[in-house]
Amino acid sequence: MRENVIVGQSGGPTAAINASLVGVFKTARERGAGQIYGMVHGIQGFLEGHYLDLREHIQTDLDIELLKRTPSAYLGSCRYKLPERQEGKEIYEEIFRRLDQLEIRAFFYIGGNDSMDTIQKLTDYGDSIGSPIRFVGIPKTIDNDLMVTDHTPGYGSAAKYIGSMLKEIIRDGLVYDLKSVTIVEIMGRNAGWLTGAAALAACEDCEGPDMIFMPEIPFDIQQFISRVDEVQKHKKSVVIAVSEGIRVPDGRYVCDLTDHLEFKDDFGHKILYGTARYLSDRIYRELGCKTRAIEFNTLQRCAAHIASRVDITEAFQAGGAAVKAAFEGDTGKMVILRRISNEPYQCTTALADVHAIANAEKKVPREWINKEGTFVTPEFLSYVRPLIQAELTPIMVDGLPRHLYCEGRSKLSNRIS
Amino acid sequence: MRENVIVGQSGGPTAAINASLVGVFKTARERGAGQIYGMVHGIQGFLEGHYLDLREHIQTDLDIELLKRTPSAYLGSCRYKLPERQEGKEIYEEIFRRLDQLEIRAFFYIGGNDSMDTIQKLTDYGDSIGSPIRFVGIPKTIDNDLMVTDHTPGYGSAAKYIGSMLKEIIRDGLVYDLKSVTIVEIMGRNAGWLTGAAALAACEDCEGPDMIFMPEIPFDIQQFISRVDEVQKHKKSVVIAVSEGIRVPDGRYVCDLTDHLEFKDDFGHKILYGTARYLSDRIYRELGCKTRAIEFNTLQRCAAHIASRVDITEAFQAGGAAVKAAFEGDTGKMVILRRISNEPYQCTTALADVHAIANAEKKVPREWINKEGTFVTPEFLSYVRPLIQAELTPIMVDGLPRHLYCEGRSKLSNRIS
Repeated sequence: MRENVIVGQSGGPTAAINASLVGVFKTARERGAGQIYGMVHGIQGFLEGHYLDLREHIQTDLDIELLKRTPSAYLGSCRYKLPERQEGKEIYEEIFRRLDQLEIRAFFYIGGNDSMDTIQKLTDYGDSIGSPIRFVGIPKTIDNDLMVTDHTPGYGSAAKYIGSMLKEIIRDGLVYDLKSVTIVEIMGRNAGWLTGAAALAACEDCEGPDMIFMPEIPFDIQQFISRVDEVQKHKKSVVIAVSEGIRVPDGRYVCDLTDHLEFKDDFGHKILYGTARYLSDRIYRELGCKTRAIEFNTLQRCAAHIASRVDITEAFQAGGAAVKAAFEGDTGKMVILRRISNEPYQCTTALADVHAIANAEKKVPREWINKEGTFVTPEFLSYVRPLIQAELTPIMVDGLPRHLYCEGRSKLSNRIS
Repeated sequence: MRENVIVGQSGGPTAAINASLVGVFKTARERGAGQIYGMVHGIQGFLEGHYLDLREHIQTDLDIELLKRTPSAYLGSCRYKLPERQEGKEIYEEIFRRLDQLEIRAFFYIGGNDSMDTIQKLTDYGDSIGSPIRFVGIPKTIDNDLMVTDHTPGYGSAAKYIGSMLKEIIRDGLVYDLKSVTIVEIMGRNAGWLTGAAALAACEDCEGPDMIFMPEIPFDIQQFISRVDEVQKHKKSVVIAVSEGIRVPDGRYVCDLTDHLEFKDDFGHKILYGTARYLSDRIYRELGCKTRAIEFNTLQRCAAHIASRVDITEAFQAGGAAVKAAFEGDTGKMVILRRISNEPYQCTTALADVHAIANAEKKVPREWINKEGTFVTPEFLSYVRPLIQAELTPIMVDGLPRHLYCEGRSKLSNRIS
C-alpha cells in the first residue's frame, strides 16, 4: 500500500525551511509515497481543513530549485500551541479525524522548540489511541537554540547574512573621518547564537565588530558606555552587535527601559525591539558622538538571496531523513544534525527523542564567550564558520531573485474574500 | 609630459562609488598619467595633507575586481562644503598650493550635488587665478537626485537591493494567517526615487508592496490609515514603503511627530529616522492589528553583495569618461549618463556644465506617481528596471563577500594614535 504523508511548517520564517519541505517532498515521492499533502498554515490551518496536494504545486525540477531559494514558509506557518490533552480533547480528536480521513501514515512538522511540542503531543496522543500514524519533527530555527542537535537548519543562512552585512556596515561606518558608534540589533531572545555570528565579519579585509553582547551575560549599561568610550580612544568608528534579548542585571530587557508600545506574538512571547535605539541614544547623550541604530529585523530570517549552501543542503537532508525515519517506523522523533568533524566539515543526520527537545532552549556555552562577556571565543567561530560556507546562487529574473509562489495558498488564505 | 591626477570621493557611501574610482584609476593609467593620487577623506582630508598613491594600493587585476565589489568609499569620504571664495580665500590658496606641490593637472571628484559644489567652486577659483588644472565631477548618489543626468551611479544597485528585499519581506509577511501591516522606511529626503523602486517587487511571483509614499506628495495620516484599513478588507498582510522624508501638509516631517533625539550630518541636514516606527504605532493604536517597522538604514547604500552589474559598469564608465574629458581639456564639467533607448537599454556618457547641477535636486516627476499619490506608474518602472539588471557576483572567501581593504587609509585616518 502506498502511504499518504502530510507535512507542515511552523514558527518563524527562515531562508532554509522550504529546503526541508523539498527534502520531505522529493524523498517521499522517491520512496513511493501515495498522496503528499501540505498543511496550509501548519496544524492551525489543518485543524480548519486547509491543506493542499504538493504534487500539484511542485511539478518541475525548476520548481524544486526555486523552492529551495524561496524564503519564509511556502505552505504558510502558524504559532499555535496544542492544549494539554485533558484540556482540549476535542482538538486532538478533530486532528486525528482529519488525518484519518486523508489516510495519513506519516506526519512531518518543520519547526523550532515550540513546534516540537506539537510533535510530542501528537505522538503521545496517537500512542494513547493506538494510531498507526508516525510523527517526525524536522528542526528549523534561525535561533539555533534546539537541544541535542549540533545546530539547526536556518541558522547557517542567517549567520551568513549577519556576517556579510556586518562587513558592509563596518565599512560604511569608516566612510567619514569622525567619531561614530553604530549599534546593530540582532535577533535572539535568550540565546546569542545569531549575535555571536557577527564575529564572522572579522577577517583579513575587515576588523569585525568591536564588541558583541549576548543574552547569556547580564548587561551593565554604565560599564558598556565606559567600554565604548575606551575603544573610541583608539578608533573612531565603533561597531557593536547586541542581541535583542539582552537584559540588565535585575532581569529587565534593555529594550524595556524605554516606553515604546508592547507587542506580543501568538505564542505569547513579547516582541523585542528598540535595544539598539535605546543604547545608541544613551551613547549619544553620554559621549556626544554620532550614533546609529540598525535593526536587522525580519531581513535576517528571510534573506534567501545570500543563503548558505551548507545550510540549504542540510535542511534538505533533514527533510529526507525524516521521511526515511517515518517510513522505517520511527515516531516521536526529531531529526538532528550530528557533526562528525570540523576540518574537513562533515555532518550527518540522526534521530533523537522529541521529548528531549520540545520546549527546551540551548544557549551559547559560557566558555564560548570571553571572560568580560564582550565577544565570542575562537571556539565559537570554529563552530559557526563551516555552517556559512558556499552559496546557493539565486535564480535571477529581470534583476531580482525569483521565488516559487504558492498560488493555492494565496487563494486559500491570504486574500480574505 | 606625463600628467599627475588626483581623485577624491565625497558624500554618502554607495555600492558603486568604488567602481568609479576604478574607472578613473584604470583609464588614467591606460592614458599614460603620471602619478595617480587619491585624496583620503575627500577635499577635507586633502586640505590636511592626506592623500595616497593609488598605484601602491591597486596593484593586481584581482584588486580591481575586489574594489568594484567593495561598498562605501575606499578612500574615505567627507561632508565638507567649501566656503564662498571671499569668505575663505586661505582655504582655496591652501588647496591649490597642495595641488601645485603634487603637480596635479586633473582633479576628479566623485559625489552628489553637494560635492559638485566643490567642483564648481574649484573650477571658478582656478579660472580666476589662471590655474592649468582641470576639474571634472563624477556623479554618485543612491538618491538619484542629480539634475541633467538620466540617472546616477549608485542608484541602480540601491534600487536592486530595495526590490529584492521587498520581495523577501512581502513573503515573510505572508507567513502567518493573520492581519499585519509592515512599514518599510527607505532613504530619500526630498525625492522618492529609492522608495519608488519598492514597486519593482511586483512581478509574477510577488504582489509587490500595497502602497508607496514619496516625499513629492504631502502625506495625510488619517487618509493613510483609512487606506490601510480599506486594503486590509481584502488582504491580510499589507506591506507599505515610505520615504524617510515624507511630510504632513503643514511641512513637518512625519518622523518629527514623535519626540525622539535629533541628529544632524555635517552638511547640517537633519538625519531622518523613525517614520516607519511612528506610522506602525499609529496603525496599531487605530486599527489594532499586528504591525512591524523596518528601516533599511545604511544597508540600502552599502549592500554591494547584491549590486547591479549595469550600475557598476556605468559607474566604472563614468570614471573613465571623466579622465578622457580632463585629458582632452574639459573642466568645470560633470559626466552625465544619457539614455539612448530603453528596449534594448542603451546608455552613453556625456558632459554637462557643473553649474547646472551643483546644489540642485531632481525629484520624481508628478506624472510618474499615480493620481492618489499612493504608487508609481508604469513609466517609473520602465525607467528604473533597466538599471537593476544583471549581477556582479561577489567574490566569496570563506563564506563571506571579500572587499579590498585600504591599508594606508586605515593607518592615516581610522586609528587615532
